[in-house]
Formats: sequence, C-alpha cells, structure tokens
Amino acid sequence: MTGNIYGENFVLVSFGESHGSCVGAVVDGCPAGLRISEEDVQKELDLRRPGTSIVTTQRREEDRVEVLSGVFGGFTTGAPVAMLIRNADKDPKAYLEIQDKPRPGHADYTARVKYGGFNDWRGGGRFSGRITATFVMGGAIAKKLLMDALGVEILAFTREIGGTRVGDPTIEEIRRNRYSNEVRCPDPEVAERMKKEIIGIRGAGDSLGGVVECVALNLPVGVGEPVFSSLDSDLARMMLSIPAAKGVDFGSGFAAAGMKGSENNDPFFYEGGKVVTHTNNSGGILGGLTNGMPLRFRVVFKPTSSIASLQRTVSMSKKVDTEFRVPGRHDPTVVPRAVPVVENAAALVLADLAIRGGFIPPVLEGGR
Amino acid sequence: MTGNIYGENFVLVSFGESHGSCVGAVVDGCPAGLRISEEDVQKELDLRRPGTSIVTTQRREEDRVEVLSGVFGGFTTGAPVAMLIRNADKDPKAYLEIQDKPRPGHADYTARVKYGGFNDWRGGGRFSGRITATFVMGGAIAKKLLMDALGVEILAFTREIGGTRVGDPTIEEIRRNRYSNEVRCPDPEVAERMKKEIIGIRGAGDSLGGVVECVALNLPVGVGEPVFSSLDSDLARMMLSIPAAKGVDFGSGFAAAGMKGSENNDPFFYEGGKVVTHTNNSGGILGGLTNGMPLRFRVVFKPTSSIASLQRTVSMSKKVDTEFRVPGRHDPTVVPRAVPVVENAAALVLADLAIRGGFIPPVLEGGR
Amino acid sequence: MTGNIYGENFVLVSFGESHGSCVGAVVDGCPAGLRISEEDVQKELDLRRPGTSIVTTQRREEDRVEVLSGVFGGFTTGAPVAMLIRNADKDPKAYLEIQDKPRPGHADYTARVKYGGFNDWRGGGRFSGRITATFVMGGAIAKKLLMDALGVEILAFTREIGGTRVGDPTIEEIRRNRYSNEVRCPDPEVAERMKKEIIGIRGAGDSLGGVVECVALNLPVGVGEPVFSSLDSDLARMMLSIPAAKGVDFGSGFAAAGMKGSENNDPFFYEGGKVVTHTNNSGGILGGLTNGMPLRFRVVFKPTSSIASLQRTVSMSKKVDTEFRVPGRHDPTVVPRAVPVVENAAALVLADLAIRGGFIPPVLEGGR
Amino acid sequence: MTGNIYGENFVLVSFGESHGSCVGAVVDGCPAGLRISEEDVQKELDLRRPGTSIVTTQRREEDRVEVLSGVFGGFTTGAPVAMLIRNADKDPKAYLEIQDKPRPGHADYTARVKYGGFNDWRGGGRFSGRITATFVMGGAIAKKLLMDALGVEILAFTREIGGTRVGDPTIEEIRRNRYSNEVRCPDPEVAERMKKEIIGIRGAGDSLGGVVECVALNLPVGVGEPVFSSLDSDLARMMLSIPAAKGVDFGSGFAAAGMKGSENNDPFFYEGGKVVTHTNNSGGILGGLTNGMPLRFRVVFKPTSSIASLQRTVSMSKKVDTEFRVPGRHDPTVVPRAVPVVENAAALVLADLAIRGGFIPPVLEGGR
Repeated sequence: MTGNIYGENFVLVSFGESHGSCVGAVVDGCPAGLRISEEDVQKELDLRRPGTSIVTTQRREEDRVEVLSGVFGGFTTGAPVAMLIRNADKDPKAYLEIQDKPRPGHADYTARVKYGGFNDWRGGGRFSGRITATFVMGGAIAKKLLMDALGVEILAFTREIGGTRVGDPTIEEIRRNRYSNEVRCPDPEVAERMKKEIIGIRGAGDSLGGVVECVALNLPVGVGEPVFSSLDSDLARMMLSIPAAKGVDFGSGFAAAGMKGSENNDPFFYEGGKVVTHTNNSGGILGGLTNGMPLRFRVVFKPTSSIASLQRTVSMSKKVDTEFRVPGRHDPTVVPRAVPVVENAAALVLADLAIRGGFIPPVLEGGR
Repeated sequence: MTGNIYGENFVLVSFGESHGSCVGAVVDGCPAGLRISEEDVQKELDLRRPGTSIVTTQRREEDRVEVLSGVFGGFTTGAPVAMLIRNADKDPKAYLEIQDKPRPGHADYTARVKYGGFNDWRGGGRFSGRITATFVMGGAIAKKLLMDALGVEILAFTREIGGTRVGDPTIEEIRRNRYSNEVRCPDPEVAERMKKEIIGIRGAGDSLGGVVECVALNLPVGVGEPVFSSLDSDLARMMLSIPAAKGVDFGSGFAAAGMKGSENNDPFFYEGGKVVTHTNNSGGILGGLTNGMPLRFRVVFKPTSSIASLQRTVSMSKKVDTEFRVPGRHDPTVVPRAVPVVENAAALVLADLAIRGGFIPPVLEGGR
Repeated sequence: MTGNIYGENFVLVSFGESHGSCVGAVVDGCPAGLRISEEDVQKELDLRRPGTSIVTTQRREEDRVEVLSGVFGGFTTGAPVAMLIRNADKDPKAYLEIQDKPRPGHADYTARVKYGGFNDWRGGGRFSGRITATFVMGGAIAKKLLMDALGVEILAFTREIGGTRVGDPTIEEIRRNRYSNEVRCPDPEVAERMKKEIIGIRGAGDSLGGVVECVALNLPVGVGEPVFSSLDSDLARMMLSIPAAKGVDFGSGFAAAGMKGSENNDPFFYEGGKVVTHTNNSGGILGGLTNGMPLRFRVVFKPTSSIASLQRTVSMSKKVDTEFRVPGRHDPTVVPRAVPVVENAAALVLADLAIRGGFIPPVLEGGR
Repeated sequence: MTGNIYGENFVLVSFGESHGSCVGAVVDGCPAGLRISEEDVQKELDLRRPGTSIVTTQRREEDRVEVLSGVFGGFTTGAPVAMLIRNADKDPKAYLEIQDKPRPGHADYTARVKYGGFNDWRGGGRFSGRITATFVMGGAIAKKLLMDALGVEILAFTREIGGTRVGDPTIEEIRRNRYSNEVRCPDPEVAERMKKEIIGIRGAGDSLGGVVECVALNLPVGVGEPVFSSLDSDLARMMLSIPAAKGVDFGSGFAAAGMKGSENNDPFFYEGGKVVTHTNNSGGILGGLTNGMPLRFRVVFKPTSSIASLQRTVSMSKKVDTEFRVPGRHDPTVVPRAVPVVENAAALVLADLAIRGGFIPPVLEGGR
C-alpha cells in the first residue's frame, strides 16, 4: 500500500497540501448505521483549527468540512466517506525563498530530493502540519464509532511543554479541564505557566517542544493483532506519522529502563468478577493486546522547526552555505494543537483494530 | 493484512511458537540475484541464540536454520524464501501452571481472552520472545540486501541496562566492540559493570530493563513513504512489535520536549558537494524521509516480566487472587539479546522502504 | 484493505454515489514528474459521459472534473491526486419504489441485506454504473503515465453486441475507428448494424449484452507479480469490478477448452534480435507475465438489468411477490460506454504492476 | 503486498518450487477454535496428487503434509498455520535443456527475463502447476472453516474436456459422482468418453483443454466487498492465479453477450419467507455480493503446454530458431487435477470475504 493510506479494515486516505486548494480525507470500511453529521466532524476540527488563540499560528482558516459521500439520512451507509476542507488563508508567496533555501528541521530538502523537485514546496506542501486536519476528519468518525459501538472514550492532554510538566491528573480532571485552556493542560494553574512560557518564547523568536499524553477508557480485552499490528505497534506507527513527533512510549515507557521486574510488573487481582491490575505500568497493553486497564501512552513533539530567528542553511541553486529567516506564520509550539490530533489519530488505530478483532460489527445495531 | 505479516514490497511472514515444533519465516519480495547462504542467516541467528552466556536464559537451542525455498545456485531467485528452525529444548511441562495463573507482565491473560482459550500457552506460545528469531531470519536477508545493493550498515548496541548508561560511543567503537562482550555494549568497561549488575539481579530473583540504540549508515536521501509509512512510522511499528519493547524515539527524541527550536534544529551546510548537518537531533529523518545523515533511534525494553520471586496473580479457574513463582528459564534482562533483533528488524523496514522508493532494483546487477 | 481501494504501488480510491453530491477518486503512488492536466482526465471522462448519443442513457451530466491536489505547475508531485465530479442531473424520486421492490439483476436486494438498510438506494447508490467514472479518472492518469514512461498504448473496442460480432480488426482499424461511431466498434459497417439493434431493443423495452475486447501494445517483458498478482489475476479482478461484467478471458480464452496443445501453444522465434511469437493464443501472457506480444483480453457484459418491460419482483415490506417497471433512465446496452472504462481500468492495473516491477521510476525523467 | 500472498483477513502465503526441497503454505488469520487435523489437509491433497491414474502425470509424490504451527490440541490457535510437503520424485536433469530453450506456452522465457536468469528453472520452478498444492493446503483449512462455521459446501467438477461437455448435472450428481471417476465428471458415462479422449491424446503426444465448473451452497447473503473485492472480482483474481487458467465467467457468463435483459434477469420471489430466484443467470452474485442462490462459475484451462511432439522454439544462448521435444512428465490435460484446486482456491476467497464481512467470528463457538 502507498504512504497516504492507513489501516486495513477501517481505512483513512489522506490528501491535500498546505497551500493547495484543499485538504481532504476518505474513510473506507466504516460500518453502516453510524449516526454522523458534519457537526460531529466539525467539532473535532475546531479544536485543531489555527488562529484561535495567542498560543497558535495566526493563519486564519474556517476549516469548514463538507461531507461528500457515504452518509445518507444521517447515517453511514457502508460506502466510503469523503470529506473536504478548502484552504482559505493561503500565502504561498511567503514561501518563495524556501524553494532554494531548505528550512532546518523541515522536509524541504528531503522532499526535494525524493520527488525530483516536483513536490509542492508552498508552506511545506504535503509535509505541512496542516495535513493533520485530515487525521482529525477521519478520526472524528472513528471516535464516534468507538463511543457509539463500545463506549470507548479517548482523552489526550498536554503533559509537558518546554520542561514544564503537569503531575498525574485524574481522569475527571483530564476530561473536564483539558479543553478549558489554550494549552490543553488538565491543571489550570500549570496551564497558565505553560502559556506564559509560550508567549515568552514567541517573543524571543524561538519555539518549544513538549509531550502529549493520551488515555483511552473502556476498551475490551484483546484489541490488537500481534505481532506486527499489535496495539502498540500500530499506535506507534500512527503517532510517528504526525509531523514533529519524535517518539512514543507506553505505560512506564522509557522509565522502565531503570526499573526492576518486581517494580514494573502489574500483579493481577480479581475485582467484581473481573481480572484487573492496580498499577498500570503496562499502559493497558500486554503482548500487544489491551488488557482492560486504561490504555496510556505519550508522544513527544520537537520544538517547532519554523522559528523567527536567523538560521544557517544552504542555497541549493548556488551550492553555498547561507543564512535566512524562515518565512510564514507558525505555532510557537505544536503541542496544544497536537492534543486533538493525537486523540483522533488514536481513534483511527483503535477503530481499525476493533473492527479487525470482531469487536464492532459491519452494521451497527439499533441505528435505524 | 493479518498480524503476522510485515511489509509491502519486502515482506516478512512470521510463524511458529516457543514450544511447538519450530519457528519460521517467509520473505517475499526479495530481489533476484542476491548472493545468500544459510551461513549468512545463521551468523545473525547465533548472535540472538539463547544459552550462550551467563547473562542470558539457560535454554539451549542450536537454532540451526534450514532455507527451504527461493534460493538457487547461491542466489535469491525472486521467489519467496522460506526458512525454519526446529525447537529442541522444549519444556512445556514447566508451564502447566500458567494455563490457570497468568504471569504478570505477560500475554497469558490477554491471549487467553482473545483466542477463547485456544492459544498455545506453552512458554507464551506465539507471544514468546522466541518469535524474534523469525525477525532475525528475515532481517538477515534484508541486511545482506541493504549492504550489497546500497552499502548500508546497521549497528545496534546496548545503551543502558538498569540505569547504567554508556556515553556517546563513536561509530568505530560501536562497530568494533558491541559484539565483543556479552552485554553488547560498545564500551568494554561499562559492559563489565552492566554484566555485574545482571549477575546481581539474577541472584536476587529479579530482572532489569534497558535501552538499545541503533544507527544506520550510508542510507540514500529520501527513504520513507510519508505520511503513514514515513521511515519513523514504520520503524516505530516494527520496534514496538518486538516483545518487551515499550517505546521508541528518534534523534533527540524525548529530550526534545525540553529543548528550544534554536537548539534542536540541525542547520544545513554544503560539504564536499553534499548537503549535510553537523548536529543530528533529527536522527537522520526529516519529514519522515532519510536526510543522508546517520539514522539514529532508541528502543526501551522493560525488565523481563518473568522473575523468580513470588508474585501476586489470580487463578482463572477458581476466580480468586493467589500467589505463584513464574516457572521456566528466562533472561535476567532481554537487552543483550535484543541488540541483534533490533538490528535485523530495522533491516526489514529499511529494505521494504528502499525497494518501494526505487533505491533497490528487482534484479541485483552483477550477481551472475 | 477495504473494498473501495485498488492497487499496491499505484492506488485508486473510489468514492461517491449515483445520486449523491459527487463521485470522486484519489490516486496515490503516481510517480512525480508526470505532466498532467484536467483536460487529460476530461478527455477520457467525455468518452464515458452519458447522454451523448442515441445508444446511451439520456441522463445528462457535464462530468467536469476538478483536480483537487497532487498536481503542481502542471506535473504530479508524488502526493495523492484527488479528483471530483459533481452530480448534476439527479433524479432520486424516480427510485423511491426500489426501496421496497428490488430490481432484478441489480444490487438493491443484496446491498440492503449487507448494509442493514442503511445503503444509499437512490439509483443504486454506490452500486451504480456511475462509479465507473472514478475508474476513468484514475485510469486517465495511469494511461498517461504508461504512455509517457513506456510508450504503452491501450485500445479497447466493442467486439460483440447482442450476438452481432466484429471480425478480427487490425490494430490500425481499432485505433482509427473505435471512437468514430457511437457503439465503439472498429468496423463502421458492423457498427451500423449494432446501432440498429440497440435502437430496436430500446424500442422493445429490453436490453442487450456484449463483449468488449482490449489490446495493450508495447508492454515490456515481465510485467506481473505471480502468483496472486499475475497480470491476468489482477486484470481479471479489475474487470469483474466493473458493474455488469460477468466474465473475462485472455488470448484464446474459453475457446482453448476445445483446442489441442499443439494448436494452442505459440512457438517462439527470433525476429530482429527479439524473441517473438507469430500466433498469440496466450494473449501476451505467459506464467502471469507479459511476454512482449500484445496483451489481449475480453470482458463480457450482461444485458442492462434495468429494462422498461414489466418484471416480477417482491415487496420487501409486505413480503409478497409483485410486479413493477424499473424506473429511471438507462443504457439499452452498457457496452459502448464500457469501452473507455475497460481501457482506463486496464491502465490502472498495468500502471500498478509496472511500478511494482521497477519498469517505471518514482520520478519521471526529463519532466522538468 | 507481494505476489505470493493472497487475502486480507484470511491470508495464504505460498512458497516452494517444483524441484526444490518442498512446497509449503502459511495461513494467517484463521479464527481460533477450528478443529483441524493433518488428515483434513491430506484428504484434499490426495485428490490433487499426481501419479494416481492413467489420466495424470506419472510423477510420483506422496505429498504428505506436515503441519508446523498454529494448531494445538486439535484446534487452530489464532496463530499462523504453516504447512509443508517435501518434494520426493524430483528429476531436474530432465529440464537442463529448457534453461536454453524456453518451452512454448510456459513461463520459461518470461521468468528468465523478469528475474535476470536467477529463477529456478527446474521443471518451471515457481511457475509449475505443483505450486497449486499450496493452494490446496490453505484451501483445506478454509473449506473446513466454511463448513464448520457456516455449513458452506463447495463442489467443483469437470464440465468439459477437449470439446466433450457434460449437461447440467444436479447438485446431488455432482456431490456423489465427481470424485468417483478419474476425470472428475459428475456423469459417469460422459466421464468414460472423456477418459478415452485423454488416453487418445496422450498417445498422440498432444494435450487437451477444458472447463472446470464450481458451485458453492449455503452462502449467506452479502458476502463480498465491493467495488474491488466484490466476490466475483476476488474469485476471478484467484482463478486466474491457477497456472493454465485462461478465463473465468459467472452465471450465464459469456453466453450473456447474446441474451436480452428480459431473458437474463432473474426475477425475485418469496419462498418460505426468503427472497429467492428460480433462475440463476447471475451465478448467485448481484452487485458483487452473494444473493443466497448457489454461487456458480466456470474456469477454462488451456491444453497442457508440455506436449511430447516436436515444437518450434529458440535457443537463447545462440539466438537462433530451433526445435525440441519438451522433457519431463506431464498431465495430458490439467482439468481433472484442477478440480480440487478450484474447489480449495474458491474456499480461500470465500473464507477471506466471509471473515471480512463479519460472517465468521474470530473465535469459533463451541469448539472447546
């Protein structure tokens, strides 16, 4: 399969470029009978939409989605669902310089080589963070499907920005607070500090990295298709497909390198007739399969590569070293806007594996 | 596609169980004309083989590979290459207890639920670390292909075990030293300390986690198929398919969460007519594509779940909490044996993407 | 993979319904550097467009394509190419009756059962012949790619309609004449007879079946990926994906059942330094691979299921037998409009296999 | 995906060569809890086994299958099922001549070009009819699964050999008689005539073609994944993957070219509370989906390309025309041995689509 298509039984096809006419998505394999509306998709897109706060890029986009197919009478039909948002606030002229001078940390150089110079370089083209809107379009359907069919809830939040970290919030705090502030942190007080840091770094012409954490609740036991489509395998693949993501870990994750087996193992207990663990170092995954505990993983995002300060680069035409300032409008940190992206991207993976595992039927009951 | 098959154009099919008759692999899509012998595969398998040192499990396996098809006159033919190693030192009786008492940290419980109790539970069956031998069989072919066709060299090594970390070794140190000691650490002095820690933890009936790092050299620019088969996406998926792996990061990775864009960006320079970077915070990946710098990533492994100490678990038949000691023979840490697994697993991903990207032709030149 | 996606390395995603807002296609995996314009796609669509002659349905559609992504500066970029045509002449009310009374020969009944009644039943929805416009959109790109990269020419034509058959036309006759008449037959005299038959059957409220034949020239030797993506395997799959197709055969095809090996084998000869055959009973395929001779296959199309005469069917709501007349506007035979569909659908298969086989590089030379 | 792997949710991996060490198969995605034994597979293999009658090749093979993995305690486990049969009666020396002189009608020439001369040419290597044993191994599991889970019965039989055709046998005649005679024809009297013709053609150093017909009963309504994995699309692909197959048609098939819609349409009726048709020109497929009527299709096989008579060919080394007699042992017609191959190959397609459509659960009920 080619690179712009994800999934086996619930599939996302992503297309479009940052400064082309649109970005869009096709979802194939969604069960029939899911009640879905443009507003269900729009709601998720709005959380990712740029230009909505001081901590994001000032590019203004309505990001109004049009559902083109696959929905009839308010329900999915079993046919592919195509969706589109038109690009409005395009400013390709801002990018003329990067045709020749690749931006450090960006795909300008590598894409130019790979595609022989034919790639759409405007604002990074296909490599722009804007394509994550297509993950959100498809993910919005996946999320609704998981909730309606299985009661699965997916909650991502900002764990860390530029070294400022939030402690361990409760599920209730995450649910209630993460979208109550611009940085999507479940602790309002920490959120305030993060916001100040972001404003500061923007002023300094620089950018910050951070960590998004994601929790999913109510997953049945056994989701995942080992070996190579283990739940963690597929989630890792998807998360690293998000531009600027540089790593992912599950449960105790990288901290497990310094732990002993006796510390890291989660003992089993019977509770209310169910097998549970009281600790969750596994992140809810054993042998690549959900174990009924909350799924928990983290994604690290590098500091935005586009910064206002002067940077070293090369001129491809002249084959010499040079300096320049990256043009265009950019997020001082991608973390807050990555929160809904992680949430919806996780939904794509979970929906695909839940269908493959027989947890969701091809036609939803009781829809009609 | 189903869970035991990896890749699109260079494909690994993995089969077999820990205490069944064998483990095996089929490679489909390998270009014709690659010079390969059973010894090429055996060499890699021997590095992963159990029972070879004090830091590994005492299970004794010859792990002698038989190539069943796809090789003729010393060269690959373009047909699928099937390979097999028979299991010798099986001891399924040791595992009778885990039919009823799932081992914490293992797939016993989740596999039992997913497969309705039909799964082969002996030694974890399909979920045993023994299946990584199939990654190595396929990876050995991929590795040889990458070297012969492109000169690509892949070097993994032990970065950290139980909190003991090695500094930044040179490529030459990695190449020379990693297989010179039982823990596969490029610094012999640190290796000695790690070894002592492992011996100590084994004596304590406990286990250690750690980190394997991997470097790949001489990759052309542009390997990767964004968005969803970006090089980092596919590597992340593959690495999380290795049992006990709990996370992966690339370049500066999780450390990037605390860095500024001005620190993390790698400026471009012209050097010898080529575009290079002097720093490598990207880990050799920009926009999901190789950038010509060394590919660099890390995989964290949790401490071995099987420990000798008494642990809490449940009896599935009696539906009560209970205690037990995990039976069988186990590695006090999986890290040293994971080193060749990471190396060969990375080769599978790189070979697949190199073929898809047109970097390796369907018939190797000059073979015959 | 899900059902609306075809191909591995050159991929078509098809979406849209007959009386929904649009039909569309996404092509992923097209090499960068292919010179392509909306007119290149439009030209092929116009050949399939309804309402253009007396032998086709009277539904009027402009079928004006919009290319949404993946083309920049007149060339493909390597990113997915999304395309759309809006539906104009929709008349869903005409179809209200088929919600309850499934049309014989159509998918009304089977789709209703499969999708639990959620399927878009208007004009057959996703099962309408209208979706072949999406094959043509994608195929137009494939066709241009095959011609520009390899000089491959694909020529389909009407071989038979309702028992009237054309003899063996020369390549030149096919090339020159097939689109010179409404029935797409390379012999103008036979075309005239076919046309009369079609007009007659329309008057009788009935319909005709027929055969489309397809020839492809200048294919290199070795296209095809045996076993399961042999050239004939993949072509057969694609051709049977065209609504109303009921069979396919290659070379001597079904006639070979009555032949001897000594008659059916094509002896090899050297001619101009190349290995050729003088007969072509193989249809240009040996062992699932092109052999350098013209590829030749036939697709049979059943008579249009929608006929004006009274037919027996059932009422699904009342669970009784009943009678009705199929509503809507229909082709008296699908064969003439199937000709460009077969041609472009064949191009999709050939482009995919040519890329997989390394015959077309990821970036076209000399484009820029 | 590469060429030797078929299916999405029930997958067959085929490997091995005619005169290599073995042929084998891996099935991935088979639900857990299917009761299966080596004898279930052996039974099907024995029907395909060479050397068992006067109408087949005299090559002698035990074809004794070994199940290597994925079965435990008499049931499938959900893990991949690997199977192997060793080649015994190899006679590669017989084929030395075809290294240089490609056999007309065979893949010798095309494979040599595609794989740069590295292909295993002994007896056709990977292109031999012997690889259909791997279809049977996988198909045997699929067939058992379809029967146990859904009660589906698949019955193929010889419809025509060398112009001698059997009339329309009843299901009961097919079931009872097809394996009662060497030619696998449901009418014993016609079988006797076919047998005589085969013996005659063998004596004449020539070969015959023919047609295998296949019926599948008790399929639920809605099996198939339109557009591109419609039931007929996938069956067509699979059937054309069988060596020597040159065409396939469904229901009235090629005869529909000369029929009117009013003749070819199958009117619906209610019968016993179910929607049925009394005719079956559709072959049990509407819109690419099963309609509850018997699935019915035909596959045409060309006369065996290997004939004893003198044939024209070329010398590849000398680049001249020449003559030769094809060496080795061969079937005078492939049709009788193709009968179990078609039956099991159809099972592979149906199992895959039945699982994808949610008709078979991931764990079979009541197994344990």
